[in-house]
Amino acid sequence: MNTQQDVLAVAERARAASHGLALATRAEKDRALHAMADSLLAHQDEILAANDEDVARAETAGTPPNIVDRLRLTPDRLAGMAQGLRDVADLPDPVGEVVRGSTLANGLELRQVRVPFGVVGMIYEARPNVTADAAGICLKSGNAVLLRGSSSARSSNAAIVAALRTAVGDADLDPDVVQLVPGDSHESVKALMRARGHVDVLIPRGGAGLIRSVVEESTVPVIETGVGNCHVYVDRAADLDKALAIVLNAKTHRTSVCNSAESLLVHADLVDSFVPLVVAALQDAGVTIHGDAAFQAHEGVVAATDEDHAAEYLSLDMSAAVVPDLDAAIEHIRRFSSQHTDAIVTEDLGAARRFTAAVDSAAVLVNASTRFTDGGEFGFGAEIGISTQKLHARGPMGLPEMTSTKYVVTGDGHVR
Amino acid sequence: MNTQQDVLAVAERARAASHGLALATRAEKDRALHAMADSLLAHQDEILAANDEDVARAETAGTPPNIVDRLRLTPDRLAGMAQGLRDVADLPDPVGEVVRGSTLANGLELRQVRVPFGVVGMIYEARPNVTADAAGICLKSGNAVLLRGSSSARSSNAAIVAALRTAVGDADLDPDVVQLVPGDSHESVKALMRARGHVDVLIPRGGAGLIRSVVEESTVPVIETGVGNCHVYVDRAADLDKALAIVLNAKTHRTSVCNSAESLLVHADLVDSFVPLVVAALQDAGVTIHGDAAFQAHEGVVAATDEDHAAEYLSLDMSAAVVPDLDAAIEHIRRFSSQHTDAIVTEDLGAARRFTAAVDSAAVLVNASTRFTDGGEFGFGAEIGISTQKLHARGPMGLPEMTSTKYVVTGDGHVR
Repeated sequence: MNTQQDVLAVAERARAASHGLALATRAEKDRALHAMADSLLAHQDEILAANDEDVARAETAGTPPNIVDRLRLTPDRLAGMAQGLRDVADLPDPVGEVVRGSTLANGLELRQVRVPFGVVGMIYEARPNVTADAAGICLKSGNAVLLRGSSSARSSNAAIVAALRTAVGDADLDPDVVQLVPGDSHESVKALMRARGHVDVLIPRGGAGLIRSVVEESTVPVIETGVGNCHVYVDRAADLDKALAIVLNAKTHRTSVCNSAESLLVHADLVDSFVPLVVAALQDAGVTIHGDAAFQAHEGVVAATDEDHAAEYLSLDMSAAVVPDLDAAIEHIRRFSSQHTDAIVTEDLGAARRFTAAVDSAAVLVNASTRFTDGGEFGFGAEIGISTQKLHARGPMGLPEMTSTKYVVTGDGHVR
Repeated sequence: MNTQQDVLAVAERARAASHGLALATRAEKDRALHAMADSLLAHQDEILAANDEDVARAETAGTPPNIVDRLRLTPDRLAGMAQGLRDVADLPDPVGEVVRGSTLANGLELRQVRVPFGVVGMIYEARPNVTADAAGICLKSGNAVLLRGSSSARSSNAAIVAALRTAVGDADLDPDVVQLVPGDSHESVKALMRARGHVDVLIPRGGAGLIRSVVEESTVPVIETGVGNCHVYVDRAADLDKALAIVLNAKTHRTSVCNSAESLLVHADLVDSFVPLVVAALQDAGVTIHGDAAFQAHEGVVAATDEDHAAEYLSLDMSAAVVPDLDAAIEHIRRFSSQHTDAIVTEDLGAARRFTAAVDSAAVLVNASTRFTDGGEFGFGAEIGISTQKLHARGPMGLPEMTSTKYVVTGDGHVR
């Protein structure tokens, strides 16, 4: 089997199908999205049976229970996936939106209009719900999608994509706008990363290792997503009740997600007031604190290394340090942050202004938990991921971020 | 000499300097831009003497006269570079612009704000005026810039950058926001392309070979610019006078630029009416036509290969073909266009709508010369290049395209 050729072949079918999808009206696309939701429910038995195979294989292989849980589909989770597709149908169509426009001095009419990318490649890990989410968001934004999920979910993904493709065809769109990338091996991921000119953009979603390898090896343009070493800085002028609630929420509300906090910084003036409070509260919540000397004065706090300050734990661990002032906090964040989300807790307007201007992250929060950096929380309705790069899209990516633009210029025989 | 280390060292100085520049006010940046313009004129003698060295070296090496001409600076050209810097000062500051904003249901205040990229790398060919243009655009958009010009212009670029850095320092900004990349060899270009995490974005400007190598080898995110195989399609419903004027202007107004037309497509109904006219007019203007069978019926037309249909000639050559209908024209453009600029000449609204929707290029023109795809013509005031990729920016890039965004979210102790 020649993986490279197989991957280019599906990419070319996706390209051909994308031409029609780019011209589809919102009504046609919304009809397809509802058909896709209906089809997931109609094929529930096949999808759950396929998922049982994946779960059994994972359990036999000794996969940790939390990973098996992510892999598992239930009637409820499937209903959630179907509802997600209907929610995308309810969102406005980004394609055709006029971003800017004017009539030039010479009478030429200039419009910058949103258009689909064309063919999008998604490379993602265990959760099979991403398969339906990504297909829905790409279809609504006029993009054909090539889906390369985890091989541990291969039966589930195949069953889901089969159900979605049937629905797309029934809705009179070309089913090749939604395709699985053939091949289970890393070779198929490599082929996708080398398909420049065939695939317009690659979006990796998953752990830091996956994302780093895609970013470094891909010749296709990449949108980097989601690694989060998020900081909470408690300023001298913080309201300590708000600070305590925010630190606890940011760290413990859900530890496995990229917008949970991993690092705590506290102003030196609060060593005797806030530090004991926050150490006790975090430890009560089961958090292991990896602290600097000031934090290590408290029992149970273990010593932090530079690796701790840089870590995305995704667990009940948190690095912690005391800083002499706001500028030292900004310097620490510049050194260690993954530039996803960083927060300050302060009642001082000047400190808030300086922090939000100087910290160069996708989201900078004042007096709010880092957990708010999320497409749903921001009101975008659907989210394909959270970009941590500076090109194209930064922060939660909704439907408009899944488009490019073109200039349409209309004249009457204009020459220079 | 260790090129990689030297390049990373200048990148780190640029990073440190970029923090201050990102916070500079418009007034501070505009003062620096005027100081840079003044300094170019004050150092005219040194700059022209350095340029004489480059020109002499190029002539000794047998460089073609048109390339030597691009390299040559004169008092007039230097005055033009200074005026370009003052023009950038007159443009609005993109940094701090609120792109969107709202108050969420829970009272969180959300703003998406333009911010600089940080450190921009420019890799470009012969013309030394790009050195001042790029420095000005980057400074105004709050970015530190690493300049890697052609080694044939090394003395000129060194003298220009010295003059600019003096002015930046005199205007109380850190001179390290404008730096030359050390080293003349291809190793320094390679080091720049591998400086992921140190350089935020790379913009190559030059020939197709340079751009392709940067796109394929760089791990730093790239904005691809400027290769143009632009088409003019003359539809059945074209006004033939307008069509003739547009084809001639698009091909012959300036042949060496990316927005000149390289390919002509004519509807089959116009074989006896328009084709003889356009062949005669192009040949009168000195154009060699590389045509299909229908065009070869005319004397002096040479046979076109697929390479001709795909070529960016940048010379008085043009490929030409007759197509049976509009959809065949769209198919031909899909196959051969570089997706820079493609134009239709037609009085038929339906044909114009179908062409502008179906042709997936950075700019799609109706009844206008391809030469209009240009930041100056579009009213953007300054242009760093014309992007032919779909991520981030597409078409002429002005100051807003030289920025990223961040979300600033303000609450009052909000937790999830």
